[in-house]
Amino acid sequence: MTRKLKSELGFSTADRIVVRGHDLVEELIGKVSLGDVAFLELKGRLPTKQESNVFNALTVTLVEHGMTPSAIATRLTYYGAPESLQGAVAAGLLGMGDRFGGSAEAAARMLQEALQETEKGAPLATDLRPLASAIVTRHKETKQPIAGLGHPVHKPIDPRTPKLFEIAAENGLSGRYVDLMQLVGEEASRSYGRSLPVNATGAIGAIASELGIPWRVCRGLAVMARAVGLVAHLQEEMEEPLAPEIWARTEEESSSHLRPSTD
Amino acid sequence: MTRKLKSELGFSTADRIVVRGHDLVEELIGKVSLGDVAFLELKGRLPTKQESNVFNALTVTLVEHGMTPSAIATRLTYYGAPESLQGAVAAGLLGMGDRFGGSAEAAARMLQEALQETEKGAPLATDLRPLASAIVTRHKETKQPIAGLGHPVHKPIDPRTPKLFEIAAENGLSGRYVDLMQLVGEEASRSYGRSLPVNATGAIGAIASELGIPWRVCRGLAVMARAVGLVAHLQEEMEEPLAPEIWARTEEESSSHLRPSTD
Amino acid sequence: MTRKLKSELGFSTADRIVVRGHDLVEELIGKVSLGDVAFLELKGRLPTKQESNVFNALTVTLVEHGMTPSAIATRLTYYGAPESLQGAVAAGLLGMGDRFGGSAEAAARMLQEALQETEKGAPLATDLRPLASAIVTRHKETKQPIAGLGHPVHKPIDPRTPKLFEIAAENGLSGRYVDLMQLVGEEASRSYGRSLPVNATGAIGAIASELGIPWRVCRGLAVMARAVGLVAHLQEEMEEPLAPEIWARTEEESSSHLRPSTD
Amino acid sequence: MTRKLKSELGFSTADRIVVRGHDLVEELIGKVSLGDVAFLELKGRLPTKQESNVFNALTVTLVEHGMTPSAIATRLTYYGAPESLQGAVAAGLLGMGDRFGGSAEAAARMLQEALQETEKGAPLATDLRPLASAIVTRHKETKQPIAGLGHPVHKPIDPRTPKLFEIAAENGLSGRYVDLMQLVGEEASRSYGRSLPVNATGAIGAIASELGIPWRVCRGLAVMARAVGLVAHLQEEMEEPLAPEIWARTEEESSSHLRPSTD
Repeated sequence: MTRKLKSELGFSTADRIVVRGHDLVEELIGKVSLGDVAFLELKGRLPTKQESNVFNALTVTLVEHGMTPSAIATRLTYYGAPESLQGAVAAGLLGMGDRFGGSAEAAARMLQEALQETEKGAPLATDLRPLASAIVTRHKETKQPIAGLGHPVHKPIDPRTPKLFEIAAENGLSGRYVDLMQLVGEEASRSYGRSLPVNATGAIGAIASELGIPWRVCRGLAVMARAVGLVAHLQEEMEEPLAPEIWARTEEESSSHLRPSTD
Repeated sequence: MTRKLKSELGFSTADRIVVRGHDLVEELIGKVSLGDVAFLELKGRLPTKQESNVFNALTVTLVEHGMTPSAIATRLTYYGAPESLQGAVAAGLLGMGDRFGGSAEAAARMLQEALQETEKGAPLATDLRPLASAIVTRHKETKQPIAGLGHPVHKPIDPRTPKLFEIAAENGLSGRYVDLMQLVGEEASRSYGRSLPVNATGAIGAIASELGIPWRVCRGLAVMARAVGLVAHLQEEMEEPLAPEIWARTEEESSSHLRPSTD
Repeated sequence: MTRKLKSELGFSTADRIVVRGHDLVEELIGKVSLGDVAFLELKGRLPTKQESNVFNALTVTLVEHGMTPSAIATRLTYYGAPESLQGAVAAGLLGMGDRFGGSAEAAARMLQEALQETEKGAPLATDLRPLASAIVTRHKETKQPIAGLGHPVHKPIDPRTPKLFEIAAENGLSGRYVDLMQLVGEEASRSYGRSLPVNATGAIGAIASELGIPWRVCRGLAVMARAVGLVAHLQEEMEEPLAPEIWARTEEESSSHLRPSTD
Repeated sequence: MTRKLKSELGFSTADRIVVRGHDLVEELIGKVSLGDVAFLELKGRLPTKQESNVFNALTVTLVEHGMTPSAIATRLTYYGAPESLQGAVAAGLLGMGDRFGGSAEAAARMLQEALQETEKGAPLATDLRPLASAIVTRHKETKQPIAGLGHPVHKPIDPRTPKLFEIAAENGLSGRYVDLMQLVGEEASRSYGRSLPVNATGAIGAIASELGIPWRVCRGLAVMARAVGLVAHLQEEMEEPLAPEIWARTEEESSSHLRPSTD
């Protein structure tokens, strides 16, 4: 009548801790890096050297983006609740949504859905350009922005993109997802008549797809990496707090039109 | 009149992203691992090979602990809000408080405050045993538990502790904090008349102190590592959800005494 | 060059606190209830007696739903982080997403977009049934569920719905949104050939629309009301904790297939 | 072997929803206000008219404090994750910690522990002044600030305090907790040689104690009330966003010393 609860991630006994089938003490601690354990957690096996290079490159890209809305929210939260570092990190992660963490997810979804449809029982498309063109047309018709293209600051190109694609290629992990993403960029640039090169989230979505990471999980790469960065923001905030000043200025300015003039 | 806002963590221009003084594209992506960038973020410089070994060992230890309250909270949250993976991870991290993530912090604080007091303008204590003894006595008198000792499941010893201490020693990072933590365990076992060996959080608190990580930040090591693990729990939950079953059972049982008997 | 920060919600001076134009001490504390201040906050003015009756009815409906996934997540989080009641409430609220809090929002959106389109520069539709029918057809064609209809437990009807509609009518706040919601239920039942009556979230979405609350804010009614309920869950959890038992059972069962058989 | 899960808060059947022993549809919706249901949730019974007046006064005081760090964090979070209103409210609530929401809790704890000790098996103290004096002395000796006294902005007195005490008295709910709080303020002012009047959080902590609310739950009053206010901030942010401007300014200024000068 009831459904059995079951998880493959890990367990402990009195003398052992097992993570994804590996003895934590004997096989993981001191032998593999944090990034490789992240890969193990998601894929159920340790990465090859090539996969490790590529997976670490993806997450390293996502750790720190300077004083983002997330970082500011983390700092403001710590000011009110210094007893709860975890709460301040959580507050910052909550901003990793559709606008930020979501763009790599959206790019991965676009690519995975496109290639999944193509490959279902059908021979692999030998030419991906028609697929790219169809994606662009569909977005244009429904007036949806195409995930993973263009950047408000990094112009003419996002410097992370060629580096990430280069690392994927060097490690034998540049395949049809990367090809399709680049073709989508080319077709979009042609169709919209302006330069729309692949940005870092497009590259991450494509390469995560090469690694077989489901698109629904891609936002999680940003979340885990940014958790690292937000702890660093809190360390800095503890030493030299910005929150009181941001608060004071914002409160003063935003209510100045309401205050009695002689105040 | 106003205080200047200032952060050293990073910035971007049109063609560069700089993290802690390093060009992200030229110096970090593809060259260093996630764990090493976490070290860079916290310490302001990349780790030596030895520091990298030790720091990664600490964080790897903290990634996955099986079906913890945090993992269950993450899964339940995702069930209600599948649009927000970041919210589900945040919900799980919120449970990394005084009871869980807080114990490494408390151990680090105990050690750092003890050695800071000793070393202020005074010659280094040649014998740490009196210091360990004083710590035990103070906790006993105030009926406070000593952080970092004993474990409800891992008996007679926590298997992670000797491994972590071994790795610290092999990499030249076992010093006075590790010594003091071990002496506190010995003195506590003697004083309370029962075995109170150093557990994993005690080892982590001591080794993090060797790496110069302030105790207030130690909880952050658990938070960043667990963010990785919680994403893996969500990936599993997406494929085979446990949340509806946990909900149904808990709701049914907890209200059964209130329901009409014929229901 | 920069945009002025501006908010109308409130400010303080040395001797006054002003909320939405009302002196907190002179006009609000002791004169109006929590529900009425919630209305003031959202609408910028205090409610009439009729609006107060209806708005309080909506929020009262949303406070407590027993041992939901949110309530369980709140309890599990408190177990790990007892220093942070706010974190435990936040964890529970994070589950008020598309599946739960989102359904009133979706119903309100459906109604507000339908009537907005109709009324733009056009005379008010005298007959809403064609509009209801078009909504049902559109959902059926795209295989989208219609928000605010049917209920897995409350059958044949959700007992909250007639009560909420009755209160709206008694207070002169049952208009075109309520009519349209009911017609959508009728048309859907006819079209799908099974009973699909309006549920509580459909009634709330419709009545919130009558009160002029934008659909994007409707999820917030659930969030604010449930914050109340989650504090009550925490009070009970402090006295008689369920979290350790839920944890122990879930951990044991979910990993039993992985554990050594003699363990 | 296992412990029974049990909750008294509520349950549903096909045709009924019961909240704290009351039929939601028959007894609560349309009959009682949001504030009164909050009281019911916490106390297990509906309030008297007097209790309702006082409880609503407490929560009304806590709804809106203008552009606090919590409100700014909520707005910044929404900017990054507009799909998740609940996440943005949660982010703001996470800042209701020791510095903000915690002060009413700390005042209530001080009062409840003092009067509990006094009253255990002993006759009620006829004179509370020695108790107040002892509290002040203890805090002074350990250099701990006394919760609930003084205010950085509201000088010479916090205007909410006399109003809250007046309402408590008018409703027959000003007793020994309120007396003790006021005496602590008097004794502290004398002992420290400067005016330290009771502030709003001191008044709230004292009056919540009169209502029999455990000190551990008092922070929850601020959390539930502020959830209301944060939804209103989000409604305003949706119409006229402040987040992008706060982000742009903070990022620019905080990294200006790192940027190349010609940039």
